[in-house]
Amino acid sequence: MAVDYATLILEGSHRAAARLISWLEDEDPRAYECMRELYPHTGRAYVVGITGSPGAGKSTLTNGLARVIRKNGLKVGIIAVDPSSPFTGGALLGDRVRMSELAVDPDIYIRSMATRGFLGGMAKAAAEVVKVLDALGQDVILIETVGVGQDEVDIIGVADTTCVVLVPGLGDAIQSLKAGIMEIADVFVINKADRQGADMLCAEVCVRIEMDAHLRERGWLAPVDRTVAVEGTGLDQMWQSIEAHRKYLLDSGKFSENRRERVSREALRMIHGELFRVVREQLEQNGRLDAAVEELVNKRLDPYTLMRDIVTEWLSSSQGKRRQDEDTKS
Amino acid sequence: MAVDYATLILEGSHRAAARLISWLEDEDPRAYECMRELYPHTGRAYVVGITGSPGAGKSTLTNGLARVIRKNGLKVGIIAVDPSSPFTGGALLGDRVRMSELAVDPDIYIRSMATRGFLGGMAKAAAEVVKVLDALGQDVILIETVGVGQDEVDIIGVADTTCVVLVPGLGDAIQSLKAGIMEIADVFVINKADRQGADMLCAEVCVRIEMDAHLRERGWLAPVDRTVAVEGTGLDQMWQSIEAHRKYLLDSGKFSENRRERVSREALRMIHGELFRVVREQLEQNGRLDAAVEELVNKRLDPYTLMRDIVTEWLSSSQGKRRQDEDTKS
Repeated sequence: MAVDYATLILEGSHRAAARLISWLEDEDPRAYECMRELYPHTGRAYVVGITGSPGAGKSTLTNGLARVIRKNGLKVGIIAVDPSSPFTGGALLGDRVRMSELAVDPDIYIRSMATRGFLGGMAKAAAEVVKVLDALGQDVILIETVGVGQDEVDIIGVADTTCVVLVPGLGDAIQSLKAGIMEIADVFVINKADRQGADMLCAEVCVRIEMDAHLRERGWLAPVDRTVAVEGTGLDQMWQSIEAHRKYLLDSGKFSENRRERVSREALRMIHGELFRVVREQLEQNGRLDAAVEELVNKRLDPYTLMRDIVTEWLSSSQGKRRQDEDTKS
Repeated sequence: MAVDYATLILEGSHRAAARLISWLEDEDPRAYECMRELYPHTGRAYVVGITGSPGAGKSTLTNGLARVIRKNGLKVGIIAVDPSSPFTGGALLGDRVRMSELAVDPDIYIRSMATRGFLGGMAKAAAEVVKVLDALGQDVILIETVGVGQDEVDIIGVADTTCVVLVPGLGDAIQSLKAGIMEIADVFVINKADRQGADMLCAEVCVRIEMDAHLRERGWLAPVDRTVAVEGTGLDQMWQSIEAHRKYLLDSGKFSENRRERVSREALRMIHGELFRVVREQLEQNGRLDAAVEELVNKRLDPYTLMRDIVTEWLSSSQGKRRQDEDTKS
């Protein structure tokens, strides 16, 4: 059963991919069977993150970039992790029409994800969906996400190239620069570049990049591209910047280095999630949690002691077992 | 040493509180010693969450509300979890002057938190800082956070009363309503209510509240208040709405019900974080992770099998230990 879905996805079935993603969302055990089959066929797609404040025009930009990539003969996957994204249904009519034009292209696969309800966080979920689209045969996967919040930054960790979108006149543009977004940007995009203040913003970003010793030492200076996404202006240049960054990653050996880190991070995240699920289940089943909460509420116990006790129980028992195994061996 | 800090905080020392929060940020072990001392003295403060899109004027509103609460003779704590908040230094000069006026009041404690770098996520960190300000003797704690992202929604889970701030003319106001923010709002605040579109937005929100059967069944219909925070208009009314919600929670028994849930959630979150820290440490120390990553990168292993194997190892060993303990007892 699960094997069939994996085969269908590898043959390019959008419908099978949609089904698997729903399973992932529902934490259906069939998802993992299927993902196991697909895993050896992943790692081929190039992943581009597109992040920026709400109102920066990320969706229109993603849409335009997808067209440019299609013109180059490549298949595109789009993952929108943004409640205000037109892909998720909440947008102006004009935007929605543009998006639905994209959706008609059989070589584009669009998937929106709600930003809540995912056990283990969005970053884990997004990483899984990337693997599905990768196995489906999409050459480039665009992830659109708002640039606020820890979880959103973690999502971007899935990307090979990260584009940070800024717009002139948005008060928080500079704020975003402060909040550590400089470090994650491989390409800066000044969208709505026909607006007043575009030159200023562009200059400001360039100065910041050049002043920051840490950024200069990286070996890659993030280019600052200008786009007017609604008119399709500057998108070819943006794609060229992404391609240039890709080339840099490959030539410098950073590509496989980054990928290895990502694999390690994802594995840890999965082990973490599963372990917690199991521990939580046990604590709930044996009534240990309810009893502890009663004590906590009455202040007869504090959560720090509880935490240490429970983790020590698990730890000592697993170490005890290990020691026991060693004794048996010797 | 740690005992001294706890005593100082209970006596109202802002400096000692600042030190403890820094320890929490750095995951310094001294933090937990100190938190353990403080825990029995927490649970007294009333916690109000203030959330909304960037640009909704949350900081000015928080600032104005703090003044109203001070007029009522109560001590105020403010926790700003927002990179674009004036509390964190990034804002217009006028805003910053207003905030610094607040900072002079010895019965107001303001703390801003960066939205990244916290192990275990912002929600855990915010919950800890709430406890510190609670022990410090602040009667009301205001948490200001942007309403985007899972982690930010989790932060709001710490609040007794949640205020959702909307503004007319911001395109994403309605989007936020869609993204599940209706469910978490106990009080709606239409800020910048002197702007065009305020009546429309107000009507829209009211209709949504009345149409939503789930919200009607809750027993509390969120009031929709209008404010012009920069002029201080409507803030008394907003505080009255918060007080009314508090009274509702206490009368209906939901207050202690919610608090119990929060205690349970926080305990789980702490166990989650600690478990991860310990497991990660072990996997890194014994080289198990590095070896596995090598296999994963070469696709000789998939992460789902790895996850299951490692968790099963832990599980079986801890169960083995438990059975062994039981045998010893009998």
